Amino acid sequence: MLTATQKRFLTDLFPGDACVLTPEETCAFGADSSRIFAQPWAVVRPETLDQTRSLLKWAHEERVPLFPRSRGTNVVGDCTPKGGGVVVSALRMNRIVEVSGDDFVAVAQPGVVTADLQRACEAKGLFYPPDPASVRISTIGGNVSTNAGGMRAVKYGVTRDYVLGLEAVLPGGEVIRTGGRTHKNVVGLDLTRLFVGAEGTLGFITEVTLKLLPRPEASASVLAGFAALEAALDAARDVFRAGILPVAMEFMADEVLRALAKVTDAPWPQGTQAVLLLKLDGSGETLPLELKRLETALAPSSPSFMARGMGADEEALWEVRRLINPASFRVAPDKMSDDVTVPRGRVAEAVARIRDAGREAGLTVLVFGHLGDGNLHVNIMHDAAGGEGERARTLKETVLGIVLDVGGTMSGEHGVGLTKRPYIDRQIGGRELEIMRQVKAVFDPHGILNPGKAY
Amino acid sequence: MLTATQKRFLTDLFPGDACVLTPEETCAFGADSSRIFAQPWAVVRPETLDQTRSLLKWAHEERVPLFPRSRGTNVVGDCTPKGGGVVVSALRMNRIVEVSGDDFVAVAQPGVVTADLQRACEAKGLFYPPDPASVRISTIGGNVSTNAGGMRAVKYGVTRDYVLGLEAVLPGGEVIRTGGRTHKNVVGLDLTRLFVGAEGTLGFITEVTLKLLPRPEASASVLAGFAALEAALDAARDVFRAGILPVAMEFMADEVLRALAKVTDAPWPQGTQAVLLLKLDGSGETLPLELKRLETALAPSSPSFMARGMGADEEALWEVRRLINPASFRVAPDKMSDDVTVPRGRVAEAVARIRDAGREAGLTVLVFGHLGDGNLHVNIMHDAAGGEGERARTLKETVLGIVLDVGGTMSGEHGVGLTKRPYIDRQIGGRELEIMRQVKAVFDPHGILNPGKAY
Repeated sequence: MLTATQKRFLTDLFPGDACVLTPEETCAFGADSSRIFAQPWAVVRPETLDQTRSLLKWAHEERVPLFPRSRGTNVVGDCTPKGGGVVVSALRMNRIVEVSGDDFVAVAQPGVVTADLQRACEAKGLFYPPDPASVRISTIGGNVSTNAGGMRAVKYGVTRDYVLGLEAVLPGGEVIRTGGRTHKNVVGLDLTRLFVGAEGTLGFITEVTLKLLPRPEASASVLAGFAALEAALDAARDVFRAGILPVAMEFMADEVLRALAKVTDAPWPQGTQAVLLLKLDGSGETLPLELKRLETALAPSSPSFMARGMGADEEALWEVRRLINPASFRVAPDKMSDDVTVPRGRVAEAVARIRDAGREAGLTVLVFGHLGDGNLHVNIMHDAAGGEGERARTLKETVLGIVLDVGGTMSGEHGVGLTKRPYIDRQIGGRELEIMRQVKAVFDPHGILNPGKAY
Repeated sequence: MLTATQKRFLTDLFPGDACVLTPEETCAFGADSSRIFAQPWAVVRPETLDQTRSLLKWAHEERVPLFPRSRGTNVVGDCTPKGGGVVVSALRMNRIVEVSGDDFVAVAQPGVVTADLQRACEAKGLFYPPDPASVRISTIGGNVSTNAGGMRAVKYGVTRDYVLGLEAVLPGGEVIRTGGRTHKNVVGLDLTRLFVGAEGTLGFITEVTLKLLPRPEASASVLAGFAALEAALDAARDVFRAGILPVAMEFMADEVLRALAKVTDAPWPQGTQAVLLLKLDGSGETLPLELKRLETALAPSSPSFMARGMGADEEALWEVRRLINPASFRVAPDKMSDDVTVPRGRVAEAVARIRDAGREAGLTVLVFGHLGDGNLHVNIMHDAAGGEGERARTLKETVLGIVLDVGGTMSGEHGVGLTKRPYIDRQIGGRELEIMRQVKAVFDPHGILNPGKAY
């Protein structure tokens, strides 16, 4: 809890509604999309670098834990002030500082919503590729802190691949500036990428410089159904074998298709057991040819169904993908979702074993996601009120065991946060963990930044 | 110098020619392509992880500096054992452990020559994109340690973007394993990328896991001449504006063209002042259309000349690019080369100022390089024996000043090493440097790994 003096410091530094102290108001900042709740001691909303510096100097000296946050879309509890402390909202640092079509860079404050930045880039014929599913509600600061992935990662990579430099305030109040605005830079240790995916544990990011690409002229997608999961995975392999690098390659297994059928008129015929959804981009002139190549690559796996879409038709194809989450709740009232990644060649085995484990547990498991990079989303559907919560938790651990057993990782894009922290030593060795904590201590010797998270 | 006991330790651990102690033999390992020389105390060539562990345990305890090295192609002195110590050659750890077309990963030991890995990947229809100019003589270990760039970086990025995981031995002999073989992974601090570009200062890398892509079906290139540098830069800008992301976009300024004319029949007409060389890849069917789009984008800048090449013809276009270095020495007997990067929109200004500075110094400066990412190679030609060495050195510092003034970086792909170390605080702040050194100390508390380099 904060002392009266500490509270006075905060209200002086953050006048008006920039500091919130009453439990009734701060409680809205106590949880993120993980729905794990902890009561914040206070919430502050810095607007300037100077305010942020004063805050981090004070917190460092007073040993007050700080929990950075912007839109709180994190699903592993990264924004939850567990153990108590001050939530620091980045939402008033939400300026797109610059979008440069000459340098192909954007400079943004952490509170900028990613879709807003994407639009600002598109308006200048530029392209910021990272595209997490939360793009319309999550922010650049959060995306950088979790190394957000998304749909387009197969061709364009993840957030890390676009961060050229950043400004951050360290505990103690010092400002560091890493990297720069050049597309190549190999001077000194790469502190920039060390911040990417660090889940807010090293410093409070106040500005990010991002690499942009020229905007592709057009895109097109293909939705294809298959009589068996194996056929879908064979088709995916043949796409890569044909030398095609799609922007996105999503898949949905049987249980997902059945859930979707409850909320929409599914375009695939009866007997379809798996669906692939692929996106290409390029020029308007060449895309029809590329689509034909893609369809040719899929053909040997005898798709039960194929639909192609360009322009408005393309969006319609992606609608089914977006319906997975609402459809999940037609299967069971509660969802325990997971984000794991396996080596691309082990997807078939991992999916089969996860489904078997689900059957054994008597729970429906929806497996879908970013097939192109082996990034599987696993929704364990259950009825918590009906007493299935414990079984779901056990199944989640079983899934983790399967994933690690096939050489995978417990998180492909959501991070470790609070919820996966208990399992981290099943994936990361003791010495490696110790190094991570010692590196953190270089930035944050008193451990005030997002304590208890990530590693 | 090593004591007799220390020498005995090394000859016991590295029997036969795996340990070299005589100055006549070790001197060949005293310099790299920077041509800076320091006499090694000894050279050892580990073959196994166990040997490497014993070596790093011993060196840590005995405080003996170690200088990792493979093919020594580094041009900034990174492999030079300045201050004295033991050179550790990675060349006997040169096994391609695995190339997996299922997982789209390759696993290689540090001494593998990059072109050999590329060929092994191509044989399986796979593609390892990083393509430094030294690709036929440099190694994966060196490429990772310097975050090597190269021709294809515009579209495909640099070495960092392909390193998924690694195994390294730390001073003290402990082995760490970071990352993995999944294409996405956000668990814990990103120690993997911290090693990329660390110039051998954190640990001795013994194995690297790399991301692969499907091999594009075909490629094609266009060589275009322009009546002025500005026209060439306008043309480059219009290529991006058309939404085209070329694999490579190289340029050569006037002085380079004149040097080339001394060694080859230049394909461009008289009056050509700048040349662009662009590469595209894709499918055999769509490439002709993409070439047409590219030529259409170049047209408004009125090229004096345009040649396109596919297959064997394509290689011929790139021959002029490869002749730049031999041609340089027809201008003057000595070359002081530099590798700087500026924000893409500042290339015109930087090139003009660098050429002006050259004229003022009375020296010919050849400016060329990876225009697509603002990465300029600057060859300051001079006659050292004729007393121009000092003027060349001064000009090199002037160039550095210009680059930093336009928001650039002193190195885009070669690194800092020894030669740029005296200037590092002109680019990196004091606190940031201090953090880098503290982070190094987590891995290497006694500072035995490649001391005096990088940061």
